[in-house]
Amino acid sequence: MSKKIAIVMGSDSDLNVMQKCADKLESFGVEHEIRIMSAHRTPAAACSYASNAKTNGFGAIIAAAGKAAHLAGVLAAHTTLPVIGVPIKSSTLDGLDSLLSTVQMPSGVPVATVAIDGAENAAILAVQILAVQDEELAQKLEKMKKDMEEAVLAKDAKLNT
Amino acid sequence: MSKKIAIVMGSDSDLNVMQKCADKLESFGVEHEIRIMSAHRTPAAACSYASNAKTNGFGAIIAAAGKAAHLAGVLAAHTTLPVIGVPIKSSTLDGLDSLLSTVQMPSGVPVATVAIDGAENAAILAVQILAVQDEELAQKLEKMKKDMEEAVLAKDAKLNT
Amino acid sequence: MSKKIAIVMGSDSDLNVMQKCADKLESFGVEHEIRIMSAHRTPAAACSYASNAKTNGFGAIIAAAGKAAHLAGVLAAHTTLPVIGVPIKSSTLDGLDSLLSTVQMPSGVPVATVAIDGAENAAILAVQILAVQDEELAQKLEKMKKDMEEAVLAKDAKLNT
Amino acid sequence: MSKKIAIVMGSDSDLNVMQKCADKLESFGVEHEIRIMSAHRTPAAACSYASNAKTNGFGAIIAAAGKAAHLAGVLAAHTTLPVIGVPIKSSTLDGLDSLLSTVQMPSGVPVATVAIDGAENAAILAVQILAVQDEELAQKLEKMKKDMEEAVLAKDAKLNT
Amino acid sequence: MSKKIAIVMGSDSDLNVMQKCADKLESFGVEHEIRIMSAHRTPAAACSYASNAKTNGFGAIIAAAGKAAHLAGVLAAHTTLPVIGVPIKSSTLDGLDSLLSTVQMPSGVPVATVAIDGAENAAILAVQILAVQDEELAQKLEKMKKDMEEAVLAKDAKLNT
Amino acid sequence: MSKKIAIVMGSDSDLNVMQKCADKLESFGVEHEIRIMSAHRTPAAACSYASNAKTNGFGAIIAAAGKAAHLAGVLAAHTTLPVIGVPIKSSTLDGLDSLLSTVQMPSGVPVATVAIDGAENAAILAVQILAVQDEELAQKLEKMKKDMEEAVLAKDAKLNT
Amino acid sequence: MSKKIAIVMGSDSDLNVMQKCADKLESFGVEHEIRIMSAHRTPAAACSYASNAKTNGFGAIIAAAGKAAHLAGVLAAHTTLPVIGVPIKSSTLDGLDSLLSTVQMPSGVPVATVAIDGAENAAILAVQILAVQDEELAQKLEKMKKDMEEAVLAKDAKLNT
Amino acid sequence: MSKKIAIVMGSDSDLNVMQKCADKLESFGVEHEIRIMSAHRTPAAACSYASNAKTNGFGAIIAAAGKAAHLAGVLAAHTTLPVIGVPIKSSTLDGLDSLLSTVQMPSGVPVATVAIDGAENAAILAVQILAVQDEELAQKLEKMKKDMEEAVLAKDAKLNT
Repeated sequence: MSKKIAIVMGSDSDLNVMQKCADKLESFGVEHEIRIMSAHRTPAAACSYASNAKTNGFGAIIAAAGKAAHLAGVLAAHTTLPVIGVPIKSSTLDGLDSLLSTVQMPSGVPVATVAIDGAENAAILAVQILAVQDEELAQKLEKMKKDMEEAVLAKDAKLNT
Repeated sequence: MSKKIAIVMGSDSDLNVMQKCADKLESFGVEHEIRIMSAHRTPAAACSYASNAKTNGFGAIIAAAGKAAHLAGVLAAHTTLPVIGVPIKSSTLDGLDSLLSTVQMPSGVPVATVAIDGAENAAILAVQILAVQDEELAQKLEKMKKDMEEAVLAKDAKLNT
Repeated sequence: MSKKIAIVMGSDSDLNVMQKCADKLESFGVEHEIRIMSAHRTPAAACSYASNAKTNGFGAIIAAAGKAAHLAGVLAAHTTLPVIGVPIKSSTLDGLDSLLSTVQMPSGVPVATVAIDGAENAAILAVQILAVQDEELAQKLEKMKKDMEEAVLAKDAKLNT
Repeated sequence: MSKKIAIVMGSDSDLNVMQKCADKLESFGVEHEIRIMSAHRTPAAACSYASNAKTNGFGAIIAAAGKAAHLAGVLAAHTTLPVIGVPIKSSTLDGLDSLLSTVQMPSGVPVATVAIDGAENAAILAVQILAVQDEELAQKLEKMKKDMEEAVLAKDAKLNT
Repeated sequence: MSKKIAIVMGSDSDLNVMQKCADKLESFGVEHEIRIMSAHRTPAAACSYASNAKTNGFGAIIAAAGKAAHLAGVLAAHTTLPVIGVPIKSSTLDGLDSLLSTVQMPSGVPVATVAIDGAENAAILAVQILAVQDEELAQKLEKMKKDMEEAVLAKDAKLNT
Repeated sequence: MSKKIAIVMGSDSDLNVMQKCADKLESFGVEHEIRIMSAHRTPAAACSYASNAKTNGFGAIIAAAGKAAHLAGVLAAHTTLPVIGVPIKSSTLDGLDSLLSTVQMPSGVPVATVAIDGAENAAILAVQILAVQDEELAQKLEKMKKDMEEAVLAKDAKLNT
Repeated sequence: MSKKIAIVMGSDSDLNVMQKCADKLESFGVEHEIRIMSAHRTPAAACSYASNAKTNGFGAIIAAAGKAAHLAGVLAAHTTLPVIGVPIKSSTLDGLDSLLSTVQMPSGVPVATVAIDGAENAAILAVQILAVQDEELAQKLEKMKKDMEEAVLAKDAKLNT
Repeated sequence: MSKKIAIVMGSDSDLNVMQKCADKLESFGVEHEIRIMSAHRTPAAACSYASNAKTNGFGAIIAAAGKAAHLAGVLAAHTTLPVIGVPIKSSTLDGLDSLLSTVQMPSGVPVATVAIDGAENAAILAVQILAVQDEELAQKLEKMKKDMEEAVLAKDAKLNT
């Protein structure tokens, strides 16, 4: 059976962006949990969570944070699981600070960064990772790709009728 | 047995950066191949390569490109495998164009982006992905993490003796 | 008789910006069609469309996309027609990502990029391209230039009476 | 017979970048001339040149300038020919100023902007524009595209032998 | 008697920002006129206006424009009067394009650039320029400086009572 | 007789850029002095210098500084003379910090900002300011403009012979 | 007894951001005063205030300003007390200008810069500075850290019940 | 007696920048130690070091790191001591990533950020913090300020003799 996905966010204010991440995992039938943990306010909880994530049956961690977004990097420091970073746009600098703080990781500790506020893509990337060894999930990804294609083709067709 | 990793780059001029990626995979004993393909100059080859990558035994694709770095995104459009993007710094704009072109993917087609010129981290991320279902690789990652830690501790100790 | 112009956009959400492009072509009496195609969601349709555009009587392709805006570049990879790129401002980074992803094309595959959200200018540029060999269109461009000039002069005159 | 292409640059220091533009046009057998004209130092010459370019048998103007790169825009104000802008990287800001000054044109007066220092692509775009009504040029573009593809495929093959 | 100040803007949409410029000049009793002229839509009018500005009794020109803001530079090319540039924030890029297009002028043709949307400061700078040889204006500037100082001191005092 | 121009720089390391400013003033026969003063290291000297500049016969102050370039703004706070700011490119951020720190002045205290490292243009702007009431200087500016034009025309002619 | 903290802001419009700074100091029982002073409009008051701050019993100065935010730097030039800078987001450039103008201070005169609009953190940093020699304050900081941790843990727990 | 200052850096490659920090502390006679610790490679050591810093007699921590510079923030999460962040310029993005990752900390956990590569200023800020309760250090800071002033005045005098 496939492993679980952890969704960790630095603040409950990120939940309105990240709910789409959970919904997308849900649509793939991938088990997951949403946790609020902060690299700076609950560092012990965050480190412990990451350290134990593999043992606890997780296959990847999705981490969302804004501004000096250290959460994904700090979790990645404590696990060998793939860590997916979602830079959250905050009230200043339009998300550039979150993006650079998440993606520009030093050699040795990668964070798999998706687009600013890219909650859905974080979920899809997590599913892709699980699907490397899970043919059923791989089939669902194929279907999602087909569905997306057909949705765009349908919009195109509708526009031209 | 673990799947292979594909390293695709848009130009052979990226090889001096990406050799480190191959070397790192080598150090983990992960089978890989290096290919030169361009989203814009050999689109047919690139699309075909991505479309068949899963069937051909690959577990993830690492794509490196500079400037309007479309390669990772174009490959991701043709596979359900995780695609890891390495933005390559080019002669203008200090890598910002490559980074944004790689990471800001639309919903539905993620690219797992690492730091600008982050060739080693792309390899490590690929290994982490394979390791989700490969305990031997997971152990090697743990060892690498330990080695890194010890190397830093040793430098620290040396500085303070 | 003059060739047709294709307007391709990555998402129907771009239509509110790009309608101005169609309207402007309309005002020149230039035949055109609006298509929704995505470099990442319907890559096959997009590649096929570009590959056949010349044969199908098009003289240029206008491509609009946001974020990691690969659409114009991907179309350009499959045609020798001039491809005009319109970077669309999205919800983060104020259009900078779209602009850089569209304009910073590698040597060999140019995209003729206009301003962020520059839908009207994309149309005018397409007309200018057709007008290189179409004196009637060239005259219409001359008239548009005159009209613009007179409109500004009229506003200036009105302000100073 | 095909029209001529004008290459205008703001300073003779841009010549080391723009020579590649002339060479590329040469390779297509497209007649062209290189002129040094400045939007700010020889505005009369520049305006007059643009105003007469169509009558003088030009099909498009390529304009290269750095910093507050007004040249392409100023020429575009005086002609209905397509104007292709090449932002030149200067000693500060890594080309961002040149790019924004060239591409962000107001509605009514487009500049077809290529990448920073994108001299070759400017030439190719100019050829694409002429080729809309010149099947022989179109064939040469097809051949160039094929040659590029084969060159990349050859490098790829060489790497994997 | 002091010379006049010209306020030129590229579009009547800039008037809501630039009215503050006219009001400030008014408050100094400095004669001025507001003109709408575009570097790209009415280049002949703009060039002619700048060429004759000195003869027509102007002491400085204030030019406001957005996006690829060429207006100040184009006017400066046609006059030896000081040209003050006001970069106008437009709908994308938050004014950065306007600022760089205005300030990064090549050697030989300066534009005295003030802050983005800095309409009032453009007026004050124009008055400072006239005041170099007009002691009455210089006294008014001294008074304005005093008034500003007292206004801030009063706010500070009020906050602390 | 014309007033003097003050060239103030924050550090003697700026002298290699600013010598061109002095040379240009020299070429116009405009009296000037070069001073090293820092907004942060010699604030008292800087404030006193600016406060007395008008009385001491100066017509404008040119201030050059890098990084958090406060010098021009601080001088402008203490004088009603026009203050011209030259943002100096430093070892990081390519001059963007210097530019924004110099140009984005609050309402009431303008700094007439020229391009990054725009030492010559600062001199020319200063001469333009003096020339508002000095016909001889105005004639020299006209001549410089002519000379520039002829130099470019000559280069253009040479290229095309 | 602990020293006082000065909160200085360039404009009363910054008060809606900086009130949170005062409230936070209040919550620690740290004596403070709020002053409106401008580096450019009331330079004499600002310099005098900074020069006397140590003598007047202050332990640190918090300075908030927007745009070309010189206030913190100017105060730092006149005191040996730690100066904390709060870059205020203004109507253009999203706070980048304020940040760079505050943080990029030349060697010799540091400003301890916090995040854009980081009013609360400025207060906490000031308390941390005082707490270096004030164990009671240090205990309050420990408690605040605990409270923050518990608040996040509570939100996390609530989400998962 | 005054407390000690900790200088922590993420990599020994930062030592060439940070040696100036140690030298400056030395010049003030402030006891310090230099440690190499990484937020990502030796997180346990870093957290433990920060947690115990106060007990071990440190008065402030200076943390230097590049790229996604999390070190200062991670240390700040584990101590109530003031943490001073030095963003180190790395091989891409010219230090902007380091700066934003260091300064844009979330509410509750400030980092006192100095300029990119601002090693000396970090030392001076640390001394200023200690000097709040150490009159002897405060006198040394006054002397340093005087010395700086005199050095600049001397350079100015030399230039004008």
